[in-house]
Amino acid sequence: MKRKINITVIGAGSWGTTFSVMLARKGYRINLWTRRDVTYNEIKNSRRNTGYTGGLYIHENVIPFTGGKNEPGSPEIIVFAVPSHVLRETIIRFNNYLKENIKNIKCVLNLAKGLEIGTNLRLSMTMEECLPENLKSKICVLSGPNIASEIAMGLPGVSVIASNNKEVLKYMQPILSSDKFRIYTNNDVIGVEIGGAVKNIIAIAAGISDGLGYGANTKASLITRGLHELTKLGVKLGANLKKVEIETWVKG
Amino acid sequence: MKRKINITVIGAGSWGTTFSVMLARKGYRINLWTRRDVTYNEIKNSRRNTGYTGGLYIHENVIPFTGGKNEPGSPEIIVFAVPSHVLRETIIRFNNYLKENIKNIKCVLNLAKGLEIGTNLRLSMTMEECLPENLKSKICVLSGPNIASEIAMGLPGVSVIASNNKEVLKYMQPILSSDKFRIYTNNDVIGVEIGGAVKNIIAIAAGISDGLGYGANTKASLITRGLHELTKLGVKLGANLKKVEIETWVKG
Repeated sequence: MKRKINITVIGAGSWGTTFSVMLARKGYRINLWTRRDVTYNEIKNSRRNTGYTGGLYIHENVIPFTGGKNEPGSPEIIVFAVPSHVLRETIIRFNNYLKENIKNIKCVLNLAKGLEIGTNLRLSMTMEECLPENLKSKICVLSGPNIASEIAMGLPGVSVIASNNKEVLKYMQPILSSDKFRIYTNNDVIGVEIGGAVKNIIAIAAGISDGLGYGANTKASLITRGLHELTKLGVKLGANLKKVEIETWVKG
Repeated sequence: MKRKINITVIGAGSWGTTFSVMLARKGYRINLWTRRDVTYNEIKNSRRNTGYTGGLYIHENVIPFTGGKNEPGSPEIIVFAVPSHVLRETIIRFNNYLKENIKNIKCVLNLAKGLEIGTNLRLSMTMEECLPENLKSKICVLSGPNIASEIAMGLPGVSVIASNNKEVLKYMQPILSSDKFRIYTNNDVIGVEIGGAVKNIIAIAAGISDGLGYGANTKASLITRGLHELTKLGVKLGANLKKVEIETWVKG
């Protein structure tokens, strides 16, 4: 039997909702925060979040909450699943909640990709700037080729979690892993964050190539050269090219 | 006006024929060898190689030859475009021809991917074993995401040529480059050959994933992890992981 871990997911967009359902199916209790009353009510009453996840049934282990009320107690994991441009204000908004639960929290995980507008910080750096002091060593980021709708359908996928803190990685890996979702761990936070942010530029270019009617060669060329440029940029920004070895997956 | 370079392409399969037509369109004279009389006759009389390149018009700068007769003189570049399992016997078959033209030949280029069956050699090693002594320093390999039919249609693509000999790369790059086909150079022959051979395993797995109805996540996961494994294998076999810098393309 699974440990009844208590996880608070902040942000009920398509990835936050899907991520919550994925973990709820594993038996964890998920507190899912939405900023909108209408989403709160729909999840509570109809077990759907039609605006973001269409017909996906929101597992009963997902307990929605909103506003400042009914904040769920004793989460061990805090997951930020909000867009990069509101990550800072959302962390600040939850600062008291984080402080109240600080002794319990073993990990603060970010699902967003990108760089912070204005500061150009990687998002783990934004987190470091505004999380309560004792949580700064608990930061972890997740990045992978993860289209939410496919995860929801249970199609196989992988993802990587990165943290400077090996204990956090070791704690999180089995919690997030499942038969259909394999989690790798990595301590190259810079590489994972830069890769996750910059690959979207290449993805857009690849989409344009398809739209223009170009073939597989053209798309593969864009991806091959894009990966090369992305790697150069990452290394310039401190990513670890030489770290070929990544700790392997574990059974979830 | 282009230099009237004389190029002998050995092997009239889909890639050899397409490669010949691509270069013929640039104004070079291409001597295309086929082992089959029927292919020789079809190219000569109908300007088609229907078995391999369907309706593709074989440019008049492509001069077919076959058997031991009519071997064209004074090639500056020899291109081997035969499957990996017959590369050795084909090089041996052409040994006299290579020796006769040895003073003129500036590059011996291999288009095949794979490892040699039985010896497990990389194909440039096979070439080193059986090419005439003075040509061993002229070896070059080409590898890229190059589907022949898309190249024939003029869809944009890129490829990489790798050699231990910088002069060979410098000589070949503008000859092979065009507006639609960008050539990068690289002196990591091991990395290019291992990548070109092993990526096909991942490509087959990706095709199986599609066939099973899995989504983009699954395929991207296979490719991401496959690239990681491929890199580890390459590095183990002597590929240069640290060489992020690749010489850039030139206008063809």
